[in-house]
Amino acid sequence: VLKTDAIIGGVHFFPNDDAGAVASKALRVNLSDLAAKGAKPLGFLLSLALPKEIGDDWLGRFAEGLRGDAVLFGCPLFGGDTDRTPGPITVSIAMFGSVPEGTMVRRAGAKPGDRVFVSGTVGDAALGLALRKGAAWKLSDAQRQHLMSRYLVPQPRNAIAEAVRSHASAAMDVSDGLAGDFAKLCRASKVAAEIEVARLPLSDAAKAVLAAEAGAIETVLTGGDDYEIVCTVRPPKADSFRAAAKAANVVVTEIGQIAAGEGLRFIGTDGKALPFRRAAFSHF
Amino acid sequence: VLKTDAIIGGVHFFPNDDAGAVASKALRVNLSDLAAKGAKPLGFLLSLALPKEIGDDWLGRFAEGLRGDAVLFGCPLFGGDTDRTPGPITVSIAMFGSVPEGTMVRRAGAKPGDRVFVSGTVGDAALGLALRKGAAWKLSDAQRQHLMSRYLVPQPRNAIAEAVRSHASAAMDVSDGLAGDFAKLCRASKVAAEIEVARLPLSDAAKAVLAAEAGAIETVLTGGDDYEIVCTVRPPKADSFRAAAKAANVVVTEIGQIAAGEGLRFIGTDGKALPFRRAAFSHF
Repeated sequence: VLKTDAIIGGVHFFPNDDAGAVASKALRVNLSDLAAKGAKPLGFLLSLALPKEIGDDWLGRFAEGLRGDAVLFGCPLFGGDTDRTPGPITVSIAMFGSVPEGTMVRRAGAKPGDRVFVSGTVGDAALGLALRKGAAWKLSDAQRQHLMSRYLVPQPRNAIAEAVRSHASAAMDVSDGLAGDFAKLCRASKVAAEIEVARLPLSDAAKAVLAAEAGAIETVLTGGDDYEIVCTVRPPKADSFRAAAKAANVVVTEIGQIAAGEGLRFIGTDGKALPFRRAAFSHF
Repeated sequence: VLKTDAIIGGVHFFPNDDAGAVASKALRVNLSDLAAKGAKPLGFLLSLALPKEIGDDWLGRFAEGLRGDAVLFGCPLFGGDTDRTPGPITVSIAMFGSVPEGTMVRRAGAKPGDRVFVSGTVGDAALGLALRKGAAWKLSDAQRQHLMSRYLVPQPRNAIAEAVRSHASAAMDVSDGLAGDFAKLCRASKVAAEIEVARLPLSDAAKAVLAAEAGAIETVLTGGDDYEIVCTVRPPKADSFRAAAKAANVVVTEIGQIAAGEGLRFIGTDGKALPFRRAAFSHF
């Protein structure tokens, strides 16, 4: 399984973010994709473009962050390339993973009747980014900290890669918002889906934001940077998937069901579909 | 064989270079490295960061250039990632190649007595870059064109990858100037070397520049962007290597010899070693 993803200062992270967090984010956005494919990480190549003001101190912390995650996720650095750039810090990673032949989990594979699961909680990172951009929700320090840390350093769900591989009919990682990403999975599988908004797994902090501003549900669902896994599971395998995820210490939540047809709908507590102004977050 | 290398607008190419040439250069700097390792290209991942002023026209020509070289070198695009950047165009490629197990050609492996060969001609691209920066040598249009095109679009020597694999004791591609790169090979192999400047393969255009400005030999040897292969070959294999390269329509030239000790010396026609102000071209 091959994957490449870059992160760029001022686009995917703030230029003054800690260098160790930048390294972690660069690695983890790629790890997240492997996890959703049911793949085990093997290692990665790093292509680093740095402005000339970057010094040894920044590089030392970057290397420390990279090494920590390489060890944590069992994913060594195979090699790389460093260049000067007149632009922002650009960290491009190409990552290699393995799955037993023919078992990689794809986006196309969901069938009517499949249950829809998502890992962890959704929307935290997008709300964390909104906070960093000045959103003035009244939150406890711990809640603010939680949301902002979810934006700063993703928590990829590699712990359930094997559970996904052995149970999911289709999967992808949620990087650009659940609404847009899961819609892509539905299109690839040529199916429709209904998600019940009331069943979405939300952190206490996200719940506090939504209590203050109900419209923030759009940010939660379309804001991006979740790095959770959304997957579909055939009904007879649902309980086993839940148990496998629990054994791996990752919360997975059933949030809806696949149907015949096309289109992804988020059903509110009033039974009506939520309208979105935009389908998915796009960095472009 | 895994390899990653990025090229960045304003660093490795001019922002107004043709988009097709940018795509070719991005791919070829990586192909060149595979060739020097004796590896056959398998395919590549592309991570592209584009400023917002890049439109469909540029992208169309970029894709055309990429596709042309992917076909020419038998190296398909496996996947990729595109992002917006507030900085310059950044094209990062991760490339995969294959060699029969245990036969990859490394930098460490040269032994005293080995002959030193280089492919093609050296210094053209560095002189082409100097021309683009305003160097005012008197050259014919064809000569100018030759030097500038060598900078714009490298000609990687993948045609002799197999010849290198089956004959060379050590090899690397020359991307940062023959002087600095071959010195790295000598250090990795823990040997010394002497190169005879009179034997260096030079294009007619490069000879014309040197006739006008003898000091330009420093640019030729330390200027970078050659994307030729420098390799060492045990004496009994030298003739066979020459024949194999000839069969692949690539000129290789014997330019010197490996010796015991350390240090790389370029010996001029006066028998004295050339002094360099700097050992190697560095983009940093």
